[in-house]
Amino acid sequence: MQRLYIIKIGGNVLDDENALKHFLKDFSGIQFPKILVHGGGKIATKIGDQLGIESKYVNGRRITDEPTRDLVSMVYGGLINRKIVTGLQSHHCNAIGLTGADGNVLPATKRPVGKVDFGYVGDIEPKRVNTSFLYFLLKQNVVPVFAPLTYEGDDILNTNADTIASVLAVALSKHFQIRLIYCFEKKGVLKDVNNDGNVIQLINSTSYRQLLDEKVLVDGILPKLENAFDAIHQGVSEVLIGGAGDLLKNLGEETEGTLIKQ
Amino acid sequence: MQRLYIIKIGGNVLDDENALKHFLKDFSGIQFPKILVHGGGKIATKIGDQLGIESKYVNGRRITDEPTRDLVSMVYGGLINRKIVTGLQSHHCNAIGLTGADGNVLPATKRPVGKVDFGYVGDIEPKRVNTSFLYFLLKQNVVPVFAPLTYEGDDILNTNADTIASVLAVALSKHFQIRLIYCFEKKGVLKDVNNDGNVIQLINSTSYRQLLDEKVLVDGILPKLENAFDAIHQGVSEVLIGGAGDLLKNLGEETEGTLIKQ
Repeated sequence: MQRLYIIKIGGNVLDDENALKHFLKDFSGIQFPKILVHGGGKIATKIGDQLGIESKYVNGRRITDEPTRDLVSMVYGGLINRKIVTGLQSHHCNAIGLTGADGNVLPATKRPVGKVDFGYVGDIEPKRVNTSFLYFLLKQNVVPVFAPLTYEGDDILNTNADTIASVLAVALSKHFQIRLIYCFEKKGVLKDVNNDGNVIQLINSTSYRQLLDEKVLVDGILPKLENAFDAIHQGVSEVLIGGAGDLLKNLGEETEGTLIKQ
Repeated sequence: MQRLYIIKIGGNVLDDENALKHFLKDFSGIQFPKILVHGGGKIATKIGDQLGIESKYVNGRRITDEPTRDLVSMVYGGLINRKIVTGLQSHHCNAIGLTGADGNVLPATKRPVGKVDFGYVGDIEPKRVNTSFLYFLLKQNVVPVFAPLTYEGDDILNTNADTIASVLAVALSKHFQIRLIYCFEKKGVLKDVNNDGNVIQLINSTSYRQLLDEKVLVDGILPKLENAFDAIHQGVSEVLIGGAGDLLKNLGEETEGTLIKQ
């Protein structure tokens, strides 16, 4: 099966002009089919503040009321997404910016109201991904760049970028050998949270359980690892968690970051 | 040659929630290959005001400094474009939102500084349009929806929506029989500016000269007609100028609006 890289970037790259420039150059240099997924929460909050749109959260998750939904349409779907696509084109990487509505790639379901009403938030699943449109783009050497937005009916919905990356990976794992790469602010999963240089090279199901028992892992990394194993159990070959600056060193067998396998 | 409709809408549709809903439903109903181009200046100005970004104009043309360029990326490329695509998808019209950078469809040249520095404004020409990518989308029954943004290098550029519509039409006229439709607030070009019902059915080169001599036409319509004949002289079969509400009645031989031919 052909190799495909699905790479997700967040604030540590997006909020830093130089880091973003550097990343887009590196990403353009990857000589394989690839997909980029981006976040942008901090930028949305900043612009929201300027517009008098209050950013509300419950348990760290944003409430997307109507003004917030318009805000994220503008910021994720416009400001950030179009800037990334243009930056990639300047490196002759033939990118195309997508939300879930474009080409109907990611139809979603508006999250039902539970204890909390999160508003215009979309839940997605691998079987609903429009994989044929994505193959069609990838075959033409067009590089999809996903904003963290999906849709249902005529509603644009806010969806977590990490989730979009993993759902895309699972959906496309039938036809590609996928490395799903999550770029974050550290070089990888750390053995010792106080020592940035001490990256765990490889984590599989067995060593994961061991690390959990040893209570070596810091809280913040746990959801990332659960997410990673979830994707692997659904068919994704490999997940890598590493630094955005190490992108080109995280594509092969030897990696700077932490490789996660079955 | 196969028929293709290229339809441009502006403020009279975009600034009115009901008009936009109605238009998107009609547009979705067109059973031919089609492309939509939208503007959005008023909405950009309104949001710009809220962000403290002053909207400056010289001779009716917006100056796009850097903050304004970010503003239009957000509003044209995000808020309006994504909303239109989603609205079309809700009618099962398989739309995809594009700026000039997406799939490199509309590479532009940043307008050189003349008497006035218009800032980040892009000039485009038919021969640079990436027609193969557009055919590729149209063949798949995907409907391109253009925001009025182009690019050069890593700069997003502001480009007039009317111009994008006509440049696309000229570029695609080699392979399609095109009707380029400009939707505006009147039902068509009026014989008598004081009588909204009095639409001129057909204007060709000869009758155009006559109308100019008779000084029947109001100033505001002249650039639209010059633009129309310019497109026709470069190969576009027909241009129609009419009301957005009459879209479905302006697709055939008989029209509510004004048909412009060689």
